[in-house]
Amino acid sequence: MKRIRQIALITMIAVGIMPISRADEGMFPISEITRLDLTAKGLEMDPNDIFNPDKTCLVDGICRVNGCTGSFVSPRGLIITNHHCAFRAIQSASSTDHDYLNDGFQAPTPGDEIPASGYTVRVTESFSDVSDQVLSVIVPNMSFVDRTKAIERRQKELEKQAEIDNPGARAEVAEMFTGKTYVLFLYTYIKDVRLVFAPPSSIGNFGGDVDNWEWPRHTGDFSFMRAYVAPDGSTADYSPENVPYQPKRFIQVAPQGANEGNFVMLLGYPGRTARHKTSSFLRYEENTRLPYIVSLYGRQIATMQAAGENNRSVALKLLSRIQSLANTEKRSRGQLKGLKTADIAAKRAAEEIGLQSFIEQEPNRKSRYGNLLKDIDAVYSEMASHADAEANFQYLRSASQVLQLAYTLYDSSVERQKEDLERESAYMDRNFDQTRQRLLLVQKDLDIPTDQLMLENMLKQIADAGQQEPELDRLSIAQLYSGTRLSDPEFLKSCLGMTPAELAAIDDTFLQWAIRLYPKYQELRELDKEREGQLGQLYGELISVKQQFLATQFVPDANATLRLTFGTVRGYSPEDAVYMAPATTLSGVIAKTTGVEPFVTPEKVVQMHAARDYGEYAHPELNDIPIAILYDTDTTGGNSGSPILNAKGQLVGVNFDRAFEATINDFAWNTNYSRSIGVDIRYVLWITDKVYGAKQLIKEMGL
Amino acid sequence: MKRIRQIALITMIAVGIMPISRADEGMFPISEITRLDLTAKGLEMDPNDIFNPDKTCLVDGICRVNGCTGSFVSPRGLIITNHHCAFRAIQSASSTDHDYLNDGFQAPTPGDEIPASGYTVRVTESFSDVSDQVLSVIVPNMSFVDRTKAIERRQKELEKQAEIDNPGARAEVAEMFTGKTYVLFLYTYIKDVRLVFAPPSSIGNFGGDVDNWEWPRHTGDFSFMRAYVAPDGSTADYSPENVPYQPKRFIQVAPQGANEGNFVMLLGYPGRTARHKTSSFLRYEENTRLPYIVSLYGRQIATMQAAGENNRSVALKLLSRIQSLANTEKRSRGQLKGLKTADIAAKRAAEEIGLQSFIEQEPNRKSRYGNLLKDIDAVYSEMASHADAEANFQYLRSASQVLQLAYTLYDSSVERQKEDLERESAYMDRNFDQTRQRLLLVQKDLDIPTDQLMLENMLKQIADAGQQEPELDRLSIAQLYSGTRLSDPEFLKSCLGMTPAELAAIDDTFLQWAIRLYPKYQELRELDKEREGQLGQLYGELISVKQQFLATQFVPDANATLRLTFGTVRGYSPEDAVYMAPATTLSGVIAKTTGVEPFVTPEKVVQMHAARDYGEYAHPELNDIPIAILYDTDTTGGNSGSPILNAKGQLVGVNFDRAFEATINDFAWNTNYSRSIGVDIRYVLWITDKVYGAKQLIKEMGL
Repeated sequence: MKRIRQIALITMIAVGIMPISRADEGMFPISEITRLDLTAKGLEMDPNDIFNPDKTCLVDGICRVNGCTGSFVSPRGLIITNHHCAFRAIQSASSTDHDYLNDGFQAPTPGDEIPASGYTVRVTESFSDVSDQVLSVIVPNMSFVDRTKAIERRQKELEKQAEIDNPGARAEVAEMFTGKTYVLFLYTYIKDVRLVFAPPSSIGNFGGDVDNWEWPRHTGDFSFMRAYVAPDGSTADYSPENVPYQPKRFIQVAPQGANEGNFVMLLGYPGRTARHKTSSFLRYEENTRLPYIVSLYGRQIATMQAAGENNRSVALKLLSRIQSLANTEKRSRGQLKGLKTADIAAKRAAEEIGLQSFIEQEPNRKSRYGNLLKDIDAVYSEMASHADAEANFQYLRSASQVLQLAYTLYDSSVERQKEDLERESAYMDRNFDQTRQRLLLVQKDLDIPTDQLMLENMLKQIADAGQQEPELDRLSIAQLYSGTRLSDPEFLKSCLGMTPAELAAIDDTFLQWAIRLYPKYQELRELDKEREGQLGQLYGELISVKQQFLATQFVPDANATLRLTFGTVRGYSPEDAVYMAPATTLSGVIAKTTGVEPFVTPEKVVQMHAARDYGEYAHPELNDIPIAILYDTDTTGGNSGSPILNAKGQLVGVNFDRAFEATINDFAWNTNYSRSIGVDIRYVLWITDKVYGAKQLIKEMGL
Repeated sequence: MKRIRQIALITMIAVGIMPISRADEGMFPISEITRLDLTAKGLEMDPNDIFNPDKTCLVDGICRVNGCTGSFVSPRGLIITNHHCAFRAIQSASSTDHDYLNDGFQAPTPGDEIPASGYTVRVTESFSDVSDQVLSVIVPNMSFVDRTKAIERRQKELEKQAEIDNPGARAEVAEMFTGKTYVLFLYTYIKDVRLVFAPPSSIGNFGGDVDNWEWPRHTGDFSFMRAYVAPDGSTADYSPENVPYQPKRFIQVAPQGANEGNFVMLLGYPGRTARHKTSSFLRYEENTRLPYIVSLYGRQIATMQAAGENNRSVALKLLSRIQSLANTEKRSRGQLKGLKTADIAAKRAAEEIGLQSFIEQEPNRKSRYGNLLKDIDAVYSEMASHADAEANFQYLRSASQVLQLAYTLYDSSVERQKEDLERESAYMDRNFDQTRQRLLLVQKDLDIPTDQLMLENMLKQIADAGQQEPELDRLSIAQLYSGTRLSDPEFLKSCLGMTPAELAAIDDTFLQWAIRLYPKYQELRELDKEREGQLGQLYGELISVKQQFLATQFVPDANATLRLTFGTVRGYSPEDAVYMAPATTLSGVIAKTTGVEPFVTPEKVVQMHAARDYGEYAHPELNDIPIAILYDTDTTGGNSGSPILNAKGQLVGVNFDRAFEATINDFAWNTNYSRSIGVDIRYVLWITDKVYGAKQLIKEMGL
């Protein structure tokens, strides 16, 4: 693949080329790396070797693994990422007979590796600014809905054309600054991904939801996967003939790890932040959306946990969904707490007062931007006024996974009637395979009694809110479930190619229900596009005037594109008189071990700790295995699995979480309280090598 | 009062006079102070000036305030102690009209001070070993019950005689080593105690039960009281003619406070520890008694909290009882956790294996002590087998405070028929006034609907356990409550002098119920005395053989007699990667303040913090008011209110709590994890002087 030479103008630059690094931002697009003065900050390699459009560089060793990040750690496509990133693959391969979640998994030879269905791997190859091309579709007096649709279509056209021009590659247009800047990214795209090694959940998820989003942490949250391509090197679906992918570069593992005070940097695909959003957005999050999520997910998690309590096979089906909801629920609680205690909305509102008075200083500025903040506020106010009712309806579809299947089947059949570029993204030809695989995975995890309970609870919530009865058409819940075949994989597959009329002719209660609900969901989809169009336009203007106001530059919010963040291994003080040191130890694991989930530790680990059987992986001064480390980089969801790199660009750990105070990162980042959490490479290697004897991996990594 | 010159042999000394200070003990009887080598440890005063039987010394400035400790801080009987020690007095004086708990209290002049009904103050004057006199009552083949009764009677005789010999003094024989050593203490005894100053509960109990037993802490847990005596200096009940008590010595306040690394020592009246008890005792606590308490109190607290939720006048009545139960409940949880995680019983059992093999090494030793540990174990096993049923019955009496009143009335009338020395201690002439006052206070706080709920819950618990119906005689709960007049103060007072026959003739449902229950409670009382007699004998033997085994000395368990403990202001690590610094700040109070109980802060404090209006009380480097400090001394309940003294013996703070890990102190003390918590004198003075303007107190303390 040809590397595109043109570098996007990703940051907003007010005056010339100045080094960037503001106190409140830390997720730098890779195009900006050379302007960060990293050498002064402790980097001991040439910054041009981190990212360089002209030659092989460190970012060639970094990949996106579904929504996570991974690193290639061998020339044969071996990827290290988090246990929780590989979770879905481990879960899929597990049953009560071979319970890899419980026991861990190891492929002694490549032939033993297990295909990770639904997994893809991407490697960033190049990018170019396409803002003008995207924004040229906007015409005067366009409706907001049409604005959104035109932009979406143009993005799809650009992506499609780029994939034609670069066969086998994956193209994605990313909105950098809302309504303002768009960049086309090209990725090497790998569809055959396999599970190589995973520790038991008692290591990989030690502390579970209790410790999630918390420091001190004692979790060995890592796993190994492998990327495969066709024998000719092209991207291919799973096949036994496929061969390991050879990355242009792999990351060298540094078994000495990182200690307090060390420079570290992370590369990864942070998903979404909202630091350029207004105070009215923050109030909407604080008062409306987050409380709703915390409340709904809390109840849904409790329902699922109760369902799986005494039945491991049910529990195995529900684990992934529980883990996902619990992760969001606790993060949302942290964000709510952070928004309230730091009163971030009030601080942003104070900044906006400054911006507003800047706008009003000059008549032209005033006439163009004078109502901007008020207009954005109005959109969120309107959203808030319908939020609970809309959310109840939207989450009805996910409360019951059977309804989710039925809806997606029908939606896909409607959408797939349209020309490719007109479809919702998930149903475009280039994405439909993935969508289909995801549907089959959802079905695989169906537990009907739990699904029914979840649906009943959601319907009760809708009834309690006094909302209109959602098209149940006098069917009882029992009738709904007895009248559907959607839990039958063959039936589901047979429906996947049908037209809307064909689906409508099938006598299946859930399908019929989804069809009755469909117009209402379409209305909501249109409404979302309308809001998106309006906010897109307004935020585009906001960025323009902010740029004039601040007379400085800033980096775009996270949007799942490759970023670099750097900092130091260091502790912090979460509250008066409390100091958190930046490293935990195996002795701490043992001290936390109660024998009751989620604080169980494999007997072999306990014994090896008792015998101080640490091999070469002990911390020289502590005579203990370092477990997790803490550092002040700027990360968010999507940075899971990001390599923690030392000053030489070598792998010293794998990022997997943030401290509770750092959940607020998504809205505001600050080195005083924002800390990311990673597993120390010494624990990774000790577990892999000494505890589970996977010498072949140690050798493959060149250690 | 003449100071008795003879110093008791309080520690068990194996070989000669050696300095004492083992790693596992820190509560030293004052007779041992000169043997602690305190000068080497940082003391900057003559150890002979801390305690000296021949002249006025520091301990003359220390007093016992009911179950707490206090310090005289002026020549006019001004006492500083904890807010929670004065709580009962503040609560008694409070109503919804003048809510001193909520608003705080300040007496601008002595005439405005409020009598603290039920409070007494004692000052240790002298002590002497009476072990031989006590133990001489034991005769061969005595039953265990008779043994207990004979020892109790002899103690009472000695106390009575000492009070005849020292008019106005209070005498108490304290058991130092169970069944082995007894010491007669003489106290100056003050019965007119008044409330002088208390901050609002939002300061004095900031953090409430949430922060109780926790560090970091931000509580201004202090108050001022004053001791009064008759104009001739003799002890007297409250009278407006009384004059302030002039202590022989008062403690000089050092407004500079104490900082990290400073030497500190505490004098006080630690209540009860169990470090010389066996592993079988610890198992009994861990498996039986503590879980029962945690469960029962948890439910009782919830009932009372719900009752007071929307009714401040009910809440005011219940607050003291809630606070007391919550304190015990959380401490018990901490102890349970500590017993389990540190497996203290297993460690003690391991020590006992050593002791047992020492015993078995020598035939004579084996024949005398061979079954000792087994016999002690048997007593606890027997107790455990009946524990829940007995506890249900015992706690029935306290669940309903009306039943408590009825029972105590009848018990007192039965006991007071006996000769004074034969009575249970509470009903002896020398104690009966106090008992009567306590009864009236219990009645003052009666809330009948809550009392009824608490009784119903306890009866249900008894029924659920399948225990025999407790003599309700077919009365419904409603009939019980409608048929009693015990909530009428006049009725209660009229009953107080009656004979058992007179009480039996009264047609009052609760009195009649108490009379029906009485024989069962008498049985339990006898059973307790039997166990006490047996354990007393066994533990006496145990101490003898342990003394031979360890060939070292050790200090007796805490028994509410005056002790000294010393250490350093220092932080600690409660868990891997967490370090607690030993001082909190006013900024920390503000950060914790949410406006929701128990994290409310008076507006004036918030404003003065915002204005950095700290006067002379700021920490010079922090430019902040230090709030609480942490130090590694050995304390337990009863040390509440103990002065924190600097190396010169000056007051730098007031002790009020322990960190959660230190709840286990009662069973095992260790400077690694045991930390005591005190309020910094700078916060005390800032609140008293700057925030509430009580300049008269600042002046009286000579500042």
